[in-house]
Amino acid sequence: MRPTIRDVARLARCSIATVSLVLNNKDVSIPQSTIERIWKAANELNYRPNKLAVGMITKRTKMLGLVIPDNSNAFFGDLAKAIETAARKNDYNLILCDSDNNGQRDLEYISILSDRQVDGVIFVRSEGNQQDDRKIIQIADQNGIPLVTVDRTMHGEKVYSITLDNFRGGYLAAQHLISLGHKRIGCYSGPLELNSSHQRLDGVKEALAEAGIPYDESLLFVGEYKLGRENEALAYFLDKKVTAVFAFNDMMAFGLYVSAMQMNISIPQDLSVVGFDDIFFCKLVSPQLTTVRQPVSDMGVCVVETLIRIMNGNNDGQPAIRKFEPELIVRSSTAPPKKN
Amino acid sequence: MRPTIRDVARLARCSIATVSLVLNNKDVSIPQSTIERIWKAANELNYRPNKLAVGMITKRTKMLGLVIPDNSNAFFGDLAKAIETAARKNDYNLILCDSDNNGQRDLEYISILSDRQVDGVIFVRSEGNQQDDRKIIQIADQNGIPLVTVDRTMHGEKVYSITLDNFRGGYLAAQHLISLGHKRIGCYSGPLELNSSHQRLDGVKEALAEAGIPYDESLLFVGEYKLGRENEALAYFLDKKVTAVFAFNDMMAFGLYVSAMQMNISIPQDLSVVGFDDIFFCKLVSPQLTTVRQPVSDMGVCVVETLIRIMNGNNDGQPAIRKFEPELIVRSSTAPPKKN
Repeated sequence: MRPTIRDVARLARCSIATVSLVLNNKDVSIPQSTIERIWKAANELNYRPNKLAVGMITKRTKMLGLVIPDNSNAFFGDLAKAIETAARKNDYNLILCDSDNNGQRDLEYISILSDRQVDGVIFVRSEGNQQDDRKIIQIADQNGIPLVTVDRTMHGEKVYSITLDNFRGGYLAAQHLISLGHKRIGCYSGPLELNSSHQRLDGVKEALAEAGIPYDESLLFVGEYKLGRENEALAYFLDKKVTAVFAFNDMMAFGLYVSAMQMNISIPQDLSVVGFDDIFFCKLVSPQLTTVRQPVSDMGVCVVETLIRIMNGNNDGQPAIRKFEPELIVRSSTAPPKKN
Repeated sequence: MRPTIRDVARLARCSIATVSLVLNNKDVSIPQSTIERIWKAANELNYRPNKLAVGMITKRTKMLGLVIPDNSNAFFGDLAKAIETAARKNDYNLILCDSDNNGQRDLEYISILSDRQVDGVIFVRSEGNQQDDRKIIQIADQNGIPLVTVDRTMHGEKVYSITLDNFRGGYLAAQHLISLGHKRIGCYSGPLELNSSHQRLDGVKEALAEAGIPYDESLLFVGEYKLGRENEALAYFLDKKVTAVFAFNDMMAFGLYVSAMQMNISIPQDLSVVGFDDIFFCKLVSPQLTTVRQPVSDMGVCVVETLIRIMNGNNDGQPAIRKFEPELIVRSSTAPPKKN
C-alpha cells in the first residue's frame, strides 16, 4: 500500500497538519527536532505526496497534452521527443495522443485532455476542417486550457502557433527544380485544408510564376501526410508526364521511392524527387533525398516555452505566430530532366 | 471557467445529489422529466466530470505510463504508437517518458509515474543495472502499480515481460553471415548488462560454435543502442580486419552506413552489415539492410493487453515471459567476404 500522510504522522508522533506544514516547507515555528523526526519518518516510509490531491487543491496537474498525427513518422517522433524533453526540464509530464491522421480523433483527444485537466495542450492537427478547428479551440477555451499549435496552424484568431515559413519552403523546393530545367513539376501534397499544405503549394505557384511557367492544376495529387497512396500517386504523375515531384513530406517521398523501385523508375534519372522535413533518413536512402529542412528540435523547445509562458500569463508582446526559416538541402534525388 | 456539477444542478433546478445519480446512470427512481432536464442542462453547459476527483474516489486514473529509451529511434517510435493505440482502445491514456537512454532517468520516471498514480507502467529499460532494476520494481510494488517490461527484460522475479527470443535473433544473424563464408564477424552491441544484448551475443556464440569457429572476444565493440559511437566502432572493426558486422539494432547499423560512406568503405563489397529490428527504413537505405525482424506492433498490443489483465487481476496461468519469434530478413547489405 502507498504510504499516506497519516502514516508519516503516526510514525513521527505528531499531527497531520504539522507533517503537512513541514513537508511543504511552510515557514512556521516548529521545533527543529520535530522537523527532523518528520523528515526521517517520511524517508523511512518512502512517502511521496498524492499528486491527484495536490492537483485538486492547486488546480495544476503539471501535465501537458500532445496531439500528433503519427508517431511512426520520424518527423513527429523527433518532435514528440523534443517536446517531452523540454516539458520534463520544466517539471511537466506529457500525455501522448496519436490521432493516426484522423481528424475525428483530434476532437476526442481535446475532450479527453480537458477532462484530465492538463495545464496546456500542444496540437498538430490531422486535417484542416475549419469547423472542427473552432470546436477544438472552444473546448480548450471553455476549460481554461491554453493551446499552442506546432507545425500546422489552426483556423482561428487567438491561437498561438509555432510553425515554419511553409510558403518559403514550397518556393525553395520548386525554385530548385526549375533551376535544374524542370517545367512539368508534380506536387504530391497533403490535405489542402491544412494551412501548411496550401502555403507550400502557394510557394510553388510563386516560383513557377517568377519563372514564367503557367501553373497546371492537373499536376497536383492530393494525398495524405503518410504512407499508403504512393502507388496511385506515382502512376498519376507518370501518366501526366511530369519530370519531377515535390512530395510535401519526406515519408511521402520515401513512399514514392518504394513505388519507383517496384516500377523500375530510376530516381533521379527518370524522375527527380524533393521531400520536406529533412528527417535523419534522408541521408541514408538511395539516392540521398533533396529536401526542405524544418528545425524540428528548435520548434519543439519553442512550443513548450511558449505554452509555459502563456500558462503563466507572461506572453504579452509575443507574436501569435512564430515562423521558423526553412532551408533547402540539395542531395542526390534531383537532376536535370531527361532529354527526349 | 469549466462548468461544475453545481452549475448543472442550478440550471436543472435540482440537487447536486440528484444530478450525480443521473449522470452516473444510477438505477434509482427519479422522474423521467427530471432526468431529461438534467441531461439537457449538462449538454448545454458542456459539463464533463472532473477526472481528478473521479480518480481520487475510484482510485483509478485510467492512465498508463510508458518509459522508452528514445522516441526518435523508429523502433521505439513504432512501439510507442502501437502502445498508445492499444491503450486508447481500452480507454486508457498514456504518459510518455523518454529516458534518452539514461538509466538514472528511468528511476526518476518510475517515481514520477507512481506519484501520478498511474494504473500501470510499461517499461523499456535504458540499461541493465540490476540494483536499479530492483529499485524500479520495488517502487512500483510499494505503490501497488503493475509493471510490464517490453523488448528489454529486467532482472527480478515477479516481472512480466513481453520480449523477443533474442538468443534466436542473434543466432539467425550470425548463422546467415557464417553461411556466406564470414569467419571474422564483429559484434556492435548495446550495453551487455541488458538481457537482450547478452542474449543476442549468446546466440552469436552458439552459431559460431556450431560452425566450429572460435569466439574471439576482441571482435566485440560494446556501444549504446543509439547513434553516436559509429565512427569509433567502424574504425575498431576495420583495425580488427572483420569482414562483417552484426549491429544489435538498425539505427546502429545505419550509423555504420554513414561512417562507411565517409570512409569510402563499400557495403557489402568491403563489409557486410546485419541489423536488428527491421524498421521501415531498412527497405529504403542503400544497400537495403539485412536484418532480424521484431514484430513491433504485435508486441505493443500484447504488452497493453497483458498489463490490463494484470491490473484487473485476470492474469493467472499466463507465463511471466512471453517471447515473440524473430525472423531473418535477407536484403542487400550482406555478401560473401572479399577474396584477398
